[in-house]
Amino acid sequence: MTDLAKIPAPLEASLKAALPPETFPDLTEAWLQEPRGRYRSSGGCLVAPKTVDEVARVVRLAAAAGVGIVPFSGGTGLVGGQIAAEGPAPVILSLHRMNRIREVFAEENVLVAEAGVVLAHVQGAAKDADRLFPLSLASEGSARIGGLLATNAGGVNVLRWGNARDLCLGLEAVLPSGEIWHGLTRLHKNNTGYDLRHLLIGAEGTLGIITAAALKLVPRPARRGVAMLVVRDPAAALELLGIVGDIAGDTLSAFELIGGMGFTFLAETMPQVRLPFEGHPAWSALIDLGGGDGFDPDAALARIYERGAEAGLVLDGVIARSERQAAELWTVRESIPEANRRIGSVSSHDISVPLSAVPAFIPRATQALAQIGSYRINCFGHLGDGNMHYNVFPQPGLSRADHEEERPAIKRCVHDIVHEMGGSVSAEHGVGRLKVEDLERYSDPAKLTAMRAIKAALDPGWIMNPGAVLRR
Amino acid sequence: MTDLAKIPAPLEASLKAALPPETFPDLTEAWLQEPRGRYRSSGGCLVAPKTVDEVARVVRLAAAAGVGIVPFSGGTGLVGGQIAAEGPAPVILSLHRMNRIREVFAEENVLVAEAGVVLAHVQGAAKDADRLFPLSLASEGSARIGGLLATNAGGVNVLRWGNARDLCLGLEAVLPSGEIWHGLTRLHKNNTGYDLRHLLIGAEGTLGIITAAALKLVPRPARRGVAMLVVRDPAAALELLGIVGDIAGDTLSAFELIGGMGFTFLAETMPQVRLPFEGHPAWSALIDLGGGDGFDPDAALARIYERGAEAGLVLDGVIARSERQAAELWTVRESIPEANRRIGSVSSHDISVPLSAVPAFIPRATQALAQIGSYRINCFGHLGDGNMHYNVFPQPGLSRADHEEERPAIKRCVHDIVHEMGGSVSAEHGVGRLKVEDLERYSDPAKLTAMRAIKAALDPGWIMNPGAVLRR
Repeated sequence: MTDLAKIPAPLEASLKAALPPETFPDLTEAWLQEPRGRYRSSGGCLVAPKTVDEVARVVRLAAAAGVGIVPFSGGTGLVGGQIAAEGPAPVILSLHRMNRIREVFAEENVLVAEAGVVLAHVQGAAKDADRLFPLSLASEGSARIGGLLATNAGGVNVLRWGNARDLCLGLEAVLPSGEIWHGLTRLHKNNTGYDLRHLLIGAEGTLGIITAAALKLVPRPARRGVAMLVVRDPAAALELLGIVGDIAGDTLSAFELIGGMGFTFLAETMPQVRLPFEGHPAWSALIDLGGGDGFDPDAALARIYERGAEAGLVLDGVIARSERQAAELWTVRESIPEANRRIGSVSSHDISVPLSAVPAFIPRATQALAQIGSYRINCFGHLGDGNMHYNVFPQPGLSRADHEEERPAIKRCVHDIVHEMGGSVSAEHGVGRLKVEDLERYSDPAKLTAMRAIKAALDPGWIMNPGAVLRR
Repeated sequence: MTDLAKIPAPLEASLKAALPPETFPDLTEAWLQEPRGRYRSSGGCLVAPKTVDEVARVVRLAAAAGVGIVPFSGGTGLVGGQIAAEGPAPVILSLHRMNRIREVFAEENVLVAEAGVVLAHVQGAAKDADRLFPLSLASEGSARIGGLLATNAGGVNVLRWGNARDLCLGLEAVLPSGEIWHGLTRLHKNNTGYDLRHLLIGAEGTLGIITAAALKLVPRPARRGVAMLVVRDPAAALELLGIVGDIAGDTLSAFELIGGMGFTFLAETMPQVRLPFEGHPAWSALIDLGGGDGFDPDAALARIYERGAEAGLVLDGVIARSERQAAELWTVRESIPEANRRIGSVSSHDISVPLSAVPAFIPRATQALAQIGSYRINCFGHLGDGNMHYNVFPQPGLSRADHEEERPAIKRCVHDIVHEMGGSVSAEHGVGRLKVEDLERYSDPAKLTAMRAIKAALDPGWIMNPGAVLRR
């Protein structure tokens, strides 16, 4: 390991004087890079507080010294929000030791978790209480609650239960002043002033550090059904989504679109993943329904298949006949990001457009990219939310390195089209450090001005996650 | 009418020069008082712009003159947010002429409405598109979208579809600088910076003026069932809520608790409202279920009744056998606020506590109030959200005027208990001018400091709805 940059010695000394020795684990690789390897930390002082009071102490000392703080949660973020590659060495504030589920209020459908609890553990605790915590995404085995909220994570169940922000009733957080906001309410209605919770959620650690959250649970759907249906094209998938709404109403938990390239990449890099169809159908939809005792998911899925086939939308399909089969279908979907990683994308785009624009967006982007070069496109994601992962890969035999110089043009091309269609260039991953320029380019100027004013007001020393979201 | 205060003549002149004559309707009673008659405006200049550009012009001129702007939407707010009774005469900016539904995107479940559209009209437009706009409350015939969002209105369907903020995808607004924020996105996922939308929603016009909103629609439940069940007590109602969840899952749209005093007041003041039971049972629950084609609401309600009765929770009940009967049951619930108004409350409390604390809260508050005086309590509301309207009335033969001096003690007593139980002293009505002191007393200090910093940053001239929410 090369020499790591250090924070000023007096701050390091005062931190070590103020906090117990176990607060300072060794700064290893885990905190120095992010999943796609696009950002690498230059170093810093790793601090892992155990309590909100310790977090507040760290913030006050760093603020007094004018040294930046980069909060680090699960480290699974895809936009570099957790890694400061440039600028003076920061305090890296890891939340992994704040890993307690403080309380479960099953009869209220509420669970209070500290920021460092891994998502899968929250899901497990909810299950133990016969409830469901519906936030679900590929990295759930390592992503932690603090980061999931700071980035307002999405995932596969947004369609039914909303984004991370919609699953949070209250927060405990340390503000840039070092003050603790005790906002850990379990209330469903609370109109007492500005909604600080929604301001911190999605601010990616630039306005404060979330240390705990009161999370909404929902009843576990007693009856669940999963199907993967081959659809004619994305427009057919969208029409099918309407039919699913008619037949299954609010029981629709997820509606995911899978492009054929996803199957190809899985076959190429992860042959252990069992694919549901012969060949690699160009477009498939993964449908997940869940309802109460009186709900018959198999009958609903059979009707969806039937009506879809009659209308020429559905060409083939598999309805899971067991929990195991349902899990297998989900494994296909959830393995695609890993397959993508193994292929190595030239450029990835986490975009959303208005729902009805999805079918036009896909061919338009693909045609526009063909003017730049020859690529393989893996387009997949959360059709029900208008949120697609539109990722661009080299042709077989080439690698991402061969396209290094084209990357900015590719990104610009896709994002311009998204913006023109009224979409978002960061649907669920956030801005981090990767999309600071995009935010400046595509944001409404009045919004950007307001954001800067809020940042300056709450964090005048600009110490919270410097370099993320907004440039000073 | 007594002489009304005026804004400075130069501002009035410049407004009249900048805007067409129809922008200046006569300032009549409609804009001078609020529903409960607790605040009366001293006057001002009524301006009713037709477009967002006109709103921006008004804001810029008022800001330049340092004159406050009080936004006025439907005028149905219950905390005086729409009436400046004190301070220099403001510009009263009425949104009633911005009353267009701009677009309906039925296949996306989105509707774009201007701030001055009456809620019932939005509901109607959604129905015309075979969709449901689920925000529903007693004042829906006159409340307008801008105010509903500015106050983050609640109502009877929050349990299933959330508060007003949860039904809003995007906003157009004029910020205190006079800049227009074009944030009218129809996206379900959009993580590009701080969530200005959620900051303006619930800010009660103190951070800007909402001029239009992209609103979420939901599928119209094809099958609906309504029942009113007499329950043993609030604890039994809460237990029944759990049973309803098991049986009906996500089809539960509303679960309202009705105290017997509500029936008494209806019989006393609105005898035309047909009551469902002989006598006035102490506690009843109004349950509304709605689901897709495959859902059988009558069977579900029958099972709920049965299981509730078996467990000793439910003592009697009516299941609506027709749409007309369902509407009649709802009329009972929706008429209670008007009956309250006719009786004349000594003190009204829009409070929420954690769900499991509701049964303890009600007797505790009632016992504490008995130490202050002898009152009739009408406690009713949104049990499913932990949000009760706990309203205090004089005994028969007395009037609210007889208790004028006790009011502060009553309010303080109820609010102290709510606060101690982890609740909110403004669950769905907001802070307005009525609860500014409560906000100061009960808010977390760090939150209040952050609110003040945000207000100062976005509205340094303190011109937006001065006197509401925060004291300068």
